[in-house]
Amino acid sequence: MNNTYELTIGKLLTLTLHRPSSSEVIYGKTRNSWRATLDRAKRLASGLEAMGVKKGSRVAVVDFDTNRYLECYYAIPMMGAVLHTVNIRLPPDQIGYTISHAQDDFIIIRDEFLPLAAKLAQHAASVKGLVTMSDTGSIPQVPLPNTHYYEDVISSGSSSYEFPDVDENSMATLFYSSGTTGIPKGVWFTHRQLVLHTLGATLALSAFSGQFRLDSNDVAMPLVPFFHVHCWGWPYSAGLLGQKLVLAGKYEPGKILELVKNEGVTVSNMVPTVLNMVVNHPSAENYTDVLSKWKVIVGGSALPHEVATRARKLGIHIMTGYGLSESAPVLTISLPTETERGLTEDEMLESIGLKAGLPVPLVELRTVTSQLADVPRDGKTPGEVVVRAPWLTDEYYKDPSGTQLLWSGGWMHTGDLAVMDKDGRIAIVDRIKDTVKSGGEWIPTILLEDLLMRHPAVYEAAVVRAQHPKWEERPVAVVSVREGKGVTEEELRAHLETYVTEGVISKFWIPDRFVIGSEQLPKTSTGKIDKKPLREKYAAILMQ
Amino acid sequence: MNNTYELTIGKLLTLTLHRPSSSEVIYGKTRNSWRATLDRAKRLASGLEAMGVKKGSRVAVVDFDTNRYLECYYAIPMMGAVLHTVNIRLPPDQIGYTISHAQDDFIIIRDEFLPLAAKLAQHAASVKGLVTMSDTGSIPQVPLPNTHYYEDVISSGSSSYEFPDVDENSMATLFYSSGTTGIPKGVWFTHRQLVLHTLGATLALSAFSGQFRLDSNDVAMPLVPFFHVHCWGWPYSAGLLGQKLVLAGKYEPGKILELVKNEGVTVSNMVPTVLNMVVNHPSAENYTDVLSKWKVIVGGSALPHEVATRARKLGIHIMTGYGLSESAPVLTISLPTETERGLTEDEMLESIGLKAGLPVPLVELRTVTSQLADVPRDGKTPGEVVVRAPWLTDEYYKDPSGTQLLWSGGWMHTGDLAVMDKDGRIAIVDRIKDTVKSGGEWIPTILLEDLLMRHPAVYEAAVVRAQHPKWEERPVAVVSVREGKGVTEEELRAHLETYVTEGVISKFWIPDRFVIGSEQLPKTSTGKIDKKPLREKYAAILMQ
Repeated sequence: MNNTYELTIGKLLTLTLHRPSSSEVIYGKTRNSWRATLDRAKRLASGLEAMGVKKGSRVAVVDFDTNRYLECYYAIPMMGAVLHTVNIRLPPDQIGYTISHAQDDFIIIRDEFLPLAAKLAQHAASVKGLVTMSDTGSIPQVPLPNTHYYEDVISSGSSSYEFPDVDENSMATLFYSSGTTGIPKGVWFTHRQLVLHTLGATLALSAFSGQFRLDSNDVAMPLVPFFHVHCWGWPYSAGLLGQKLVLAGKYEPGKILELVKNEGVTVSNMVPTVLNMVVNHPSAENYTDVLSKWKVIVGGSALPHEVATRARKLGIHIMTGYGLSESAPVLTISLPTETERGLTEDEMLESIGLKAGLPVPLVELRTVTSQLADVPRDGKTPGEVVVRAPWLTDEYYKDPSGTQLLWSGGWMHTGDLAVMDKDGRIAIVDRIKDTVKSGGEWIPTILLEDLLMRHPAVYEAAVVRAQHPKWEERPVAVVSVREGKGVTEEELRAHLETYVTEGVISKFWIPDRFVIGSEQLPKTSTGKIDKKPLREKYAAILMQ
Repeated sequence: MNNTYELTIGKLLTLTLHRPSSSEVIYGKTRNSWRATLDRAKRLASGLEAMGVKKGSRVAVVDFDTNRYLECYYAIPMMGAVLHTVNIRLPPDQIGYTISHAQDDFIIIRDEFLPLAAKLAQHAASVKGLVTMSDTGSIPQVPLPNTHYYEDVISSGSSSYEFPDVDENSMATLFYSSGTTGIPKGVWFTHRQLVLHTLGATLALSAFSGQFRLDSNDVAMPLVPFFHVHCWGWPYSAGLLGQKLVLAGKYEPGKILELVKNEGVTVSNMVPTVLNMVVNHPSAENYTDVLSKWKVIVGGSALPHEVATRARKLGIHIMTGYGLSESAPVLTISLPTETERGLTEDEMLESIGLKAGLPVPLVELRTVTSQLADVPRDGKTPGEVVVRAPWLTDEYYKDPSGTQLLWSGGWMHTGDLAVMDKDGRIAIVDRIKDTVKSGGEWIPTILLEDLLMRHPAVYEAAVVRAQHPKWEERPVAVVSVREGKGVTEEELRAHLETYVTEGVISKFWIPDRFVIGSEQLPKTSTGKIDKKPLREKYAAILMQ
């Protein structure tokens, strides 16, 4: 072959680096062009190489979203090593478990997390050295051997370092999702998968007219953490498009609003919890002039109707997407159907509702029975979402039995239940593990939660299964009320009954019990409501 | 691997086929949805299989741009066979040569070309059968064995046919460029290359703000022939985006204007010659209301300033691109630089001028000396354009020595001379084979031609080298004047001297002789000015 062109991560930057001046990557007071960013990535790789990092080495990063983390996103895979994006929201013991399971060779860690490092050092026999980072500029003092300071590694590195040729099918990234059983599960992705994910997801957002389109001139500020499923691919898509990239560090709603205004941010991604925080910030209404230019892609869990409405009132433009750790993550986005082309943004949002949308290009997506037969496209019959795409993880890392289930029948099983409408659009109605089976029938809890949250007094809601003497399982709703508001069990039941009358839900879906409180519901490490402790707490509530 | 996902051509259609209703493919009175198009492609593949077409078979297609040709673009590669897009503008003997050289197994041919078929049958011992096509609906009578009628093949085919799994690195398409020596040169592309070409080129046109952006809602009417370098990839990009696709058959300027109006065409591609024909059509000005919504991508040769100006006056939006047969073809498009962002469309067009633009994502592009050293980015120093990209042909088919030159030093040599400006944008100034070497210095002929065509009396111009007793070679300009206009050698020399004064060209670049006539200049099979006969005709003009 004369023409060997491997789809490696560095190739995403060809156009951005061909241009002499490029947009900036901004973190706090640090403003580096994309060119300077890659120059620092080169020096970092050179410095890491001198420390002993080589092809196949695992390098863990523990940080908020910073310019340094972005440099790691390019430098580590491009030198043929593996970037392990550590989930800092896991408990320390579980972080230790992932570092040990990944056999990480080096850890790059932010000073704020150094107390953790001391603990991790015991866990992880494989770790040969540490690189510390700091926003303060003062070098953290760490009583551990072979510890280097990030900026020293960069200044000692050579700018004439050349990244080696890397096989497109070699491992580029590795990370752990929280796992349904409490043991984190590792997934990993190759260079080729990440390049194709970037091309497919970027194309879906830019070439297809939705409520808005992504553009190379957009100013992007990701609000999905860098440690969470590649920040949905934004560190790479921003590089591909050469976008101005604003990094928010640790998320605070007031700071986010200020950054949107001061940096002219036009597009962000986030989970509903973050959007909820921002739109409910006391001074959000002072920012409507800039918020009306803000395009937001929401995913990770269902977008509550109330949050969407509030965001639209502030002028924010919204699209939704769906994906999971195992799929890098993007699988669908809320593109309009032919018949929706003429709708306003608000009408579109109503029309889409909870729907996760249409598969992005190159993704084959079905909703199926346990026998892998397609369920009808009637908008009512739930089936498991199964997919094929060029960017799905090949396995759970070192977990053959989990992998077998994931890829059973040659399709990747998402573990999500969805209905598909006649236009081919899916709406996620439940996690299979979260669903309630009442007298042999599925009750989709996510839909019920969305309807509950449309009640003005409800801040959050979770519907979980409880054991039942007659029906085996029945739903119980756990509701957190808004500050200064109150609501009774009867009022919530009456609220849901209006949707029974409208034909939205079946009467037998209405929960048997409503547990009403003012405390926030427990959350997972990625900010979603954690149903596991709720399920345990209320498992026997209907048996008493 | 659980997760084998080959980048094969059918994958481009995942989203378009997932949607229940899709835009239409239109040819004359035929209107098929994309879904119906693929259904016909399946039946065609099934029918071809019954005739003996199998993986690796070569199937030649001889047609204008029709819905049937589009079906072949999908069916033939998707069944693992090779689509040979026959260049119908080559002389019959050369067409015969390409069919024999490709070892075509079957020929699918339009009735108008059947006289050719009889001739080809003698040439091509490999051909096992013929499929005839007709717009009239009457089955052509052909005195050749094993001849089938296209629509019969489709109706006999099974709609439950399933395309087989195909290796992404297997040959999908094969075609011949006219070749500089007169012997056509074959280039071929794999499924993977065509998928990545489609993703890269579509992304460049949709995610990057240029003078316009490509969109899934666009109505596309390609005006680059299907037999010419994959029609620049549009049969595939339109399928990827699910665009309404209007096929113009044989090109006639009056018909083109009517189609733009009646079908609501919003985007087309074409060579300058076609744009020139359309904008100079006597009734073009009656169409300004629709032309002002028409986005046109021009490539294939330099866009004369005068044609661009006329098109802009009619309201047409213009971007330019650059590529070649060997590169599938897209390499660059005329994206604005940072500093040009605020310019109007007309200012942009002036600013870009002849510039072919910036490399599209995933393309690495350099301008180099014969030693593969970069020439300065000064907008003045010509160098050969060399490239790396995921969609370059691996070889000239069955031509190891040509291939060696093409890939000399690990970069693909385009044979084009370009200057690169400080923004990284290239302007093609000559074909290496066309350039004039005067006293050891290159004289870029394309730039001279563009400047000559800015003279109001000049319709077309070609600058060719002629032998010179002192300087070895000197330029001679061959000029065709507009109807009813006249111009003298002195006037043209004075016209060029104004550009010397402005610093655009060097004084010694001015041609020694101007041959002025009213006849159109000779054209190649792709509509470009054919300099070869001119060079031969005037080779000795300065020696007399």
